[in-house]
This record gives sequence, C-alpha cells and structure tokens, in this order.
Amino acid sequence: MRLNGQTWEFTSKPVILSAAAVVGPEEGQGPLSTDFDYVYDNIDINEKTWEKAERRLLEQASQLAVVKAELTKDQIQFYVGGDLMNQIISSTFAARTLGVPYLGVFGACSTSMESLALAALLVDTGAAERVLAGTASHNCTAEKQFRYPTEYGAQKPPTAQYTVTGAGCSVVGKNGKGPVIARATIGRVMDLGIKDPLNMGAAMAPAAADTIAAHFRDTGLTPGYYDLVITGDLASVGLPIAKELLQKAGVHMNGTEFTDCGLLIYDLQNQTYVKAGGSGCGCSAVVTYGHLLKKLIHKELKKVLVVATGALLSPLSYQQGESIPCIAHAVALEMED
Amino acid sequence: MRLNGQTWEFTSKPVILSAAAVVGPEEGQGPLSTDFDYVYDNIDINEKTWEKAERRLLEQASQLAVVKAELTKDQIQFYVGGDLMNQIISSTFAARTLGVPYLGVFGACSTSMESLALAALLVDTGAAERVLAGTASHNCTAEKQFRYPTEYGAQKPPTAQYTVTGAGCSVVGKNGKGPVIARATIGRVMDLGIKDPLNMGAAMAPAAADTIAAHFRDTGLTPGYYDLVITGDLASVGLPIAKELLQKAGVHMNGTEFTDCGLLIYDLQNQTYVKAGGSGCGCSAVVTYGHLLKKLIHKELKKVLVVATGALLSPLSYQQGESIPCIAHAVALEMED
Repeated sequence: MRLNGQTWEFTSKPVILSAAAVVGPEEGQGPLSTDFDYVYDNIDINEKTWEKAERRLLEQASQLAVVKAELTKDQIQFYVGGDLMNQIISSTFAARTLGVPYLGVFGACSTSMESLALAALLVDTGAAERVLAGTASHNCTAEKQFRYPTEYGAQKPPTAQYTVTGAGCSVVGKNGKGPVIARATIGRVMDLGIKDPLNMGAAMAPAAADTIAAHFRDTGLTPGYYDLVITGDLASVGLPIAKELLQKAGVHMNGTEFTDCGLLIYDLQNQTYVKAGGSGCGCSAVVTYGHLLKKLIHKELKKVLVVATGALLSPLSYQQGESIPCIAHAVALEMED
Repeated sequence: MRLNGQTWEFTSKPVILSAAAVVGPEEGQGPLSTDFDYVYDNIDINEKTWEKAERRLLEQASQLAVVKAELTKDQIQFYVGGDLMNQIISSTFAARTLGVPYLGVFGACSTSMESLALAALLVDTGAAERVLAGTASHNCTAEKQFRYPTEYGAQKPPTAQYTVTGAGCSVVGKNGKGPVIARATIGRVMDLGIKDPLNMGAAMAPAAADTIAAHFRDTGLTPGYYDLVITGDLASVGLPIAKELLQKAGVHMNGTEFTDCGLLIYDLQNQTYVKAGGSGCGCSAVVTYGHLLKKLIHKELKKVLVVATGALLSPLSYQQGESIPCIAHAVALEMED
C-alpha cells in the first residue's frame, strides 16, 4: 500500500479471483448479452416484489462469484456492498444470506468501484485474505423510489438515463490467477449546481473529470497508459461534458479509448426507451464484472481504468430544492502477462 | 495490521487526534450535557428544515474536530461517514462542504464505529495519514422518515427508543497524543425474525452479542480486559437481552462494566419521553466522542470496547413484512500511560 494524494497504489496487486454478473431481460437484449452469467427473461426476476427481485439478483451474483472462485462462504472474510435502495437494504439482505462480516457502503452508482477499491485495500494490507465486493440495481425499484410511481408511466426527456436491472459481484484475493487491481482513486464530492434528476450525466460529469485528473496527477501516469478509460454511467449527455472538462484541465484523453458503461450496455439505436443510456449501481458493476473482465482475461485489454460515477441525491433533497452532489471512484484493472 | 477471524488488530495503534460532539436541546438536558462541544437550545438547530439541521450538526462537528486537531481540511486525506437519512445525504453534503475524498458508509446506528474502524484501518495500513470519521442523526428527520409524520404525534410503546439529535466526528492520525484505536471487530448481519420497528433494542441485541463474542474469541482477551464494554443503542430493553445471550454463549461479562450509550445520554427517570433510551447514529457517536474520550484522556477509563449496533431496516422493507436485519461493529479504544 502506497498513498499518493487520493490514490492507493496496491503494491501486492490483489487478484480478482472470480466475478459474476446477473441481469434482467432488457440488458439481455443489449450488445453485451453473452457476457453475463445469467439473463432473466422477466423484469420481476420470478419474485413477487421488485425489491425482492433486486435482492435475488444480488444474492445470486454473490453466490455465483463465490462458487466460480471454487470457494465456500466460510473462506470469505468480508462482504463490502451497497445499492441504491433506501438504507441499502438489498445489500443487507444479501449479507444476511451470506452470513459473513459486512461493511455497508454507499456511493450511489459509484458503489461498484467504492466496494471494489475497499476490497482491494483490505486484501492488499492484510486486513483480509478474500473479500466479496458487489452491488445491484433494478429499474423498477429505482424508478419507484427516485422518480414517479412506475404505473404512472411518466414521459422522460432525452437526457434521462435508464436504470440497469442487474447485479455484479467479485471475489478479491491475495494470490491466484486473473486480472489484478493495481490502484484506486477515491473521489471528492463535486456539485456544480445541477438540480435536474433527469439529467444525471451532466451532474456527474465534473466528478468523473475530477477523479480522472486526480488519478493521473497522483500516479504520474498518462491516459495513454490505459487501453481503456471507462466511466460508470455518464451516458450520451455526460461523457462529452467529461471529455470537455478534462480537455480544459489539460488532461488529453486522445491517447486512449474513452467510453462509458452506460453507452455499452444497451443498443441505443434500437432500445430507444433507454434514452441517453444506462445508469444505476448495476450498470458499471455488470459491465465491469461481465464484459471488461472477460476482455482482460482474454488479453483483448491489458490495462483498464473504471471510473464509476454516482449521483448522491435523495428524492427528499431534490424536493427541498438542493442540487445534486456527485462523486466518482476509479479502479485500475490490469492483466499481467 | 493483523487479521484474526473478523477482527483487525491495529499494530501501529492509530491515535484519535481530536473529536467533537454537537447536540440538540434534549441531549443538553441529559446527564452528559457538559461533555459536548456545543448544545443547541432549539431542535431546529437554527435551520429551516430538519434535514438542513442534521447536516449543520454534522458539518459543525466535522469542522470542530479538524480545528481541535490544529489541522486544516487539506491535511485530511479522507472523510469516512454515513447517516440514517435516505442515500446518507447529510454525510454527503458534509463531504461536499469539506471537499476531501469521501467514502460513504452505512450501518444504521453502527455507522459510528464502522466509520471509525475504517478510519483506523486506513491510517494503520498507510492508506492515509489522517482520516475524519463521523456521523449524525436528528430526532425529527428520523421520525419523519422511519415512523410517522412528526406532526401526527403518534403514541409509542415503552420499548420504543428516542433518536438522538447530534453529530460526532473524530480525526484519526498516525502519530500524536490521545487515546489509541487498538482493534476493531466487523459484525455479521443477524436477524432473529423481529419485525417491530418500535422494539429495536430486542432486534439488535443478538447482533451485539454476536460481535462481542466474536471479539473475545478472535483476540483471546476476556471481558475483564476492558474497564468498560458499551453497546451502541440497545437501551433498557435490548441490553438485558444481550447480557442473557452472552451468558448463554459462555461469555461472562461480570468481570467488566457493561452498559449502553442509549442509557447514558438521557435521564430516563425525568426525560420519560425517551421511553427505553436513546438511539440513532448520533447516539453512540456523541457518547463516544463527547463522553468516553474525555474519560480516556483523563485516565478515568483505560480500555473501552464500543460496540455500536445498527438496525438495518428501511420503512419499505418493514411495510413489505420483512424482519429487521441488524449488525454491530466493535472498536477498542485504549489510553496508554
């Protein structure tokens, strides 16, 4: 462990021993469909409530990740997780089922990388041998909680994003085969005064740019070091803003591929209901644990920086006229030869 | 850093460089009144909404803690915090004001010790030099969110607890004078099927007992090692249950003083509206950072185990008929000669 600014350099290079991604039907119709471990054909995920559906996704992804690592739950010391639901109840129920010591975290959609960064920290420093990190979201629980009653069928502007139904989990360990976690940058809360919860991409873009700039400042690396820098869920509105902000800050991203998980998960041309693209805790989690890890394992990618972004609003803070505080946490994944 | 079971032994003994506790008027009428840094004389904390009031308490406690450590915000690498509000919005707004990299956490009322354990971990392992840990709660924001509209004035059974209006923060650093953080035990989610959100003490008692038993099992210490073992907010209903559960588990607490933050903060004889005692994230935070730390600094106590308990329910999970998952995290504070 070496601290540079707000970046942790994991000197022992913790390994992602396994990962699992479980998604709903709409994600199954997207271009990454074959990368996921399981695709449900119904948005109810065979449950009676959407909350139970979200929980089931997370429980399934966590159990799959443990099994794929050829481990039992007893061999996992800690579960680090969170989600978008009030009081992160989906993660808590998953933790109850797992029965392992639990660190609840919250960073809205950045929870995927907050939990992975902490898991890597625990393993790197000897605070754990193996840690499970994971998160989930469900389109209907998020709509119901953050926006309008789902049955109301409210129309949305083109800046709106579509919450991913899916869960992603990984097991991080000290030794083993697989992509390693090289470093992580913990973000600051950024808030440029945007108050529109149907334009999260614009609200979150400054946080993504701030964390990316901090990452390169702290590490001395240049964007070209990574094959791919991928933000969490800025989607089609937020990503160009982040690019512009980085350009202005003197961080030139043209040496690397720079895209967004919210743009990859759906077919934006045909799945037009997703508007600007995907969002939610599950978005960066299933894209990272389903899609990107496979590319790393197959060495189609060697160095990836995942910058998960989170809009930390609550419906109440929005109703009380507050702007939307945002954050982004970055984790560098590398596949060694 | 040494891991034993679910317990971290902090070999470098991180120091609590400073701490601050800010409370509302009812806590100011309790027996610990003179231990707090600031007591507001109005429940509105001079703000227009209770949510802004809660935020102000946390911002003030965090700023006071930094100032009391004779530091500036730039010298703090990370803020680890959370609270009871949906999407931990009070902590997020405090993080926005502080402007330091932020790790949002959630463990309901156990957030106080979850954040302190993580702060100690970061400092002990070299992942940070100085970390701010903190949390807050407000009686009216919690009532409004978790129970009934405040104006409704719903009557309560004697098992109900009273959410503390207050915020507590500490600065943890590598070197300096003050009580040290010797070790921490991260709890598992326990759920014995209790569904009554007006009887949190009974719901949380098994989690407290489980974490205390794990702490002694992992460390090889006996209860007599500590001058005081103090739970977060089991209050008058939960504490006797925890005692009984520990007795049955073969952990005999008669060698040490064993009480509860929720019993200390109010005068239960005269402040009868608090029913079974205090609760909320602020409860164990202000008792620890206001009261217990002073006793440690003055060497009236030398070894204290704070076992913060959390009921991880959401109003929705309760309304959907789910039982209340609970957790407890323990942190050992010691004053060296």
